[in-house]
Amino acid sequence: MKVTPWEVSGEIDYNKLIKEFGTEPINDKLLARIKKHTGELHPFLRRKIFFSHRDLNWILNEYEKGNKFFLYTGRSPSGQVHIGHLVPWMFTKWLQDKFNVDLWFQFPDEEKFLFKEDLTFEKVEKTLYDNMLDVIALGFNPKKTKFLIDTKDAGLMYKPACEVAKKITFSTVKAAFGFDNSFNIGQIFYTAMQTVPAILPSILAGKNIPCLIPHAIDQDPHFRISRDVLQKLGYYKPASIHSVFLPPLSGPGGKMSSSDASTAIYTTDDAKTVKNKVMKYAYSGGQPTVEEHRKKGGNPDIDVSYQWLTFFEENDKMLKSYYDDYKSGKLLTGELKQLLVDKLNKFLEKHQANREKAKDKVKEFYL
Amino acid sequence: MKVTPWEVSGEIDYNKLIKEFGTEPINDKLLARIKKHTGELHPFLRRKIFFSHRDLNWILNEYEKGNKFFLYTGRSPSGQVHIGHLVPWMFTKWLQDKFNVDLWFQFPDEEKFLFKEDLTFEKVEKTLYDNMLDVIALGFNPKKTKFLIDTKDAGLMYKPACEVAKKITFSTVKAAFGFDNSFNIGQIFYTAMQTVPAILPSILAGKNIPCLIPHAIDQDPHFRISRDVLQKLGYYKPASIHSVFLPPLSGPGGKMSSSDASTAIYTTDDAKTVKNKVMKYAYSGGQPTVEEHRKKGGNPDIDVSYQWLTFFEENDKMLKSYYDDYKSGKLLTGELKQLLVDKLNKFLEKHQANREKAKDKVKEFYL
Repeated sequence: MKVTPWEVSGEIDYNKLIKEFGTEPINDKLLARIKKHTGELHPFLRRKIFFSHRDLNWILNEYEKGNKFFLYTGRSPSGQVHIGHLVPWMFTKWLQDKFNVDLWFQFPDEEKFLFKEDLTFEKVEKTLYDNMLDVIALGFNPKKTKFLIDTKDAGLMYKPACEVAKKITFSTVKAAFGFDNSFNIGQIFYTAMQTVPAILPSILAGKNIPCLIPHAIDQDPHFRISRDVLQKLGYYKPASIHSVFLPPLSGPGGKMSSSDASTAIYTTDDAKTVKNKVMKYAYSGGQPTVEEHRKKGGNPDIDVSYQWLTFFEENDKMLKSYYDDYKSGKLLTGELKQLLVDKLNKFLEKHQANREKAKDKVKEFYL
Repeated sequence: MKVTPWEVSGEIDYNKLIKEFGTEPINDKLLARIKKHTGELHPFLRRKIFFSHRDLNWILNEYEKGNKFFLYTGRSPSGQVHIGHLVPWMFTKWLQDKFNVDLWFQFPDEEKFLFKEDLTFEKVEKTLYDNMLDVIALGFNPKKTKFLIDTKDAGLMYKPACEVAKKITFSTVKAAFGFDNSFNIGQIFYTAMQTVPAILPSILAGKNIPCLIPHAIDQDPHFRISRDVLQKLGYYKPASIHSVFLPPLSGPGGKMSSSDASTAIYTTDDAKTVKNKVMKYAYSGGQPTVEEHRKKGGNPDIDVSYQWLTFFEENDKMLKSYYDDYKSGKLLTGELKQLLVDKLNKFLEKHQANREKAKDKVKEFYL
């Protein structure tokens, strides 16, 4: 298994990641504490899709004292948004609503440009607009949500990035990200820009504000550095809450890739494409023949359609019945796939309508 | 001898630098070609204070075809401006007037912050304003001169800096500047920001414009990288013209330092301070006693007062007479020092008056 901000591959052992990265698992006690404030628990919490954190208890301590946090998450624009990308954002939206807090959403439009040999800024800018539509479509409140676009907002960001950069040596990024001397100086500097949104609201407000970063676990190496540096600079260490990856259609292992259409459902895929992809590519935990499946039953724990339903079917009872019926052989692979297709298409129909409406709203989210 | 953008020490052999850096000496043929356009030659050219260049013939070729260049120079704000700093700026002003061209003046206010452990941005910002007054006092035309302040103008600069940074590896900056793994990632990235003013006018105009950079020779390692990278990105290679350093009061070797008041005359020193410093600290090429001096004569080639007069006494005949009279013993060290003091104080009186007036003009130079 390999998990870095730029590569996720192999079969991922999330418990091992908690140990390796030095994060805390989200336990029932913490869930109960969250529920006290939110009234209910998001399915991503109930199902441990958000499974790990740093300093979430501290964030709640401060919140309970009346010291509200802000949320920070982001999207490095490149290629199309797939439904795996939406997972941390949907959860962020829920947190924004439940805690009534501000969100700073970073679009580091230089990152992929610096890391991909052939990518031009022209291509990134097209994707950026497209990606923003997907974020807005999830329903973020423009009054409480600011988009930070690195190249556009560098007039605000570069100076604090230098404050951060001064505390990070090449040795540090070498160890954290596996860089060597052949890496370009933009890649080397970049992590400083990714740290900035964790303090920019504090800088603008002239006082320290706690920051909570919901993100997929692969970004943790950046924020490990952020926590170390920001403390030295007199800021709070940002807290974080980490999700697993929505597995690729092709089966467990790695994460979905924007550049491989057979592993991902894009947010703009039409109903027919979704059905074709799921039917054709979704890795199955079923038996080779219907007869055998009825007799031996399927394995939902490795079946991608079932796994995806744990992300998109909010009803726990329904989900449980899919699990049991698939395991017993009552539910066939084709039927399970159809349940997923229906769920996804219902979700995407709404998302795509919101995405159209988002076209008029982009500027409302600008600084 | 050591000459890097951050350290100049030892006795400097400028001919050796030309060979080591791979620049071209400024010869009489080139001077004649410049004179064709300027009518006269600035004393800094006549006296080979500007002694070396890259691609100056190409700049003149383009100029003669009607393809005007722009000038780019700068000041990394930190501490007080001393008269050594003024040398490239005074010459830049002359070039601006004679060729009637635009000037982009960079204030990389993050550079010294990144390179000096204890320096804060608060201190840099104070110095920045102060330093700008010295630049404006030299009489630059605000209609043809733009100030680029890195942290303020990063909204324009960071994106092209990323284009540049993508083409520069850590190996390159390691070799060019002697960095190692303990350098911070802001220092490593910085050279990309120093390259940007060489292309920003081209980017804003949407067409390639030749760039000429007058600067002291220690900055050449930056622009060597710029030339290599910008060509790869489809821009012109920036041309440059290089000055020697005004030697420190304490004698030949190294360059003047803002942080050592006994080696430098600041632009804000009053007449009495100037006199005291010169009389007390200026390294002398004279003999230990008046009698011996009258008999053996002094050595103007190592005498700092004489060296400084080559920068500040515009009249060639006067300068020649000082040289001859000091060498013959007719002119005593105290008298030579007084000639310098008078010259400097006359210059500084005017500069300080202009510096006061500059306080109302700063914003006129902003982007």
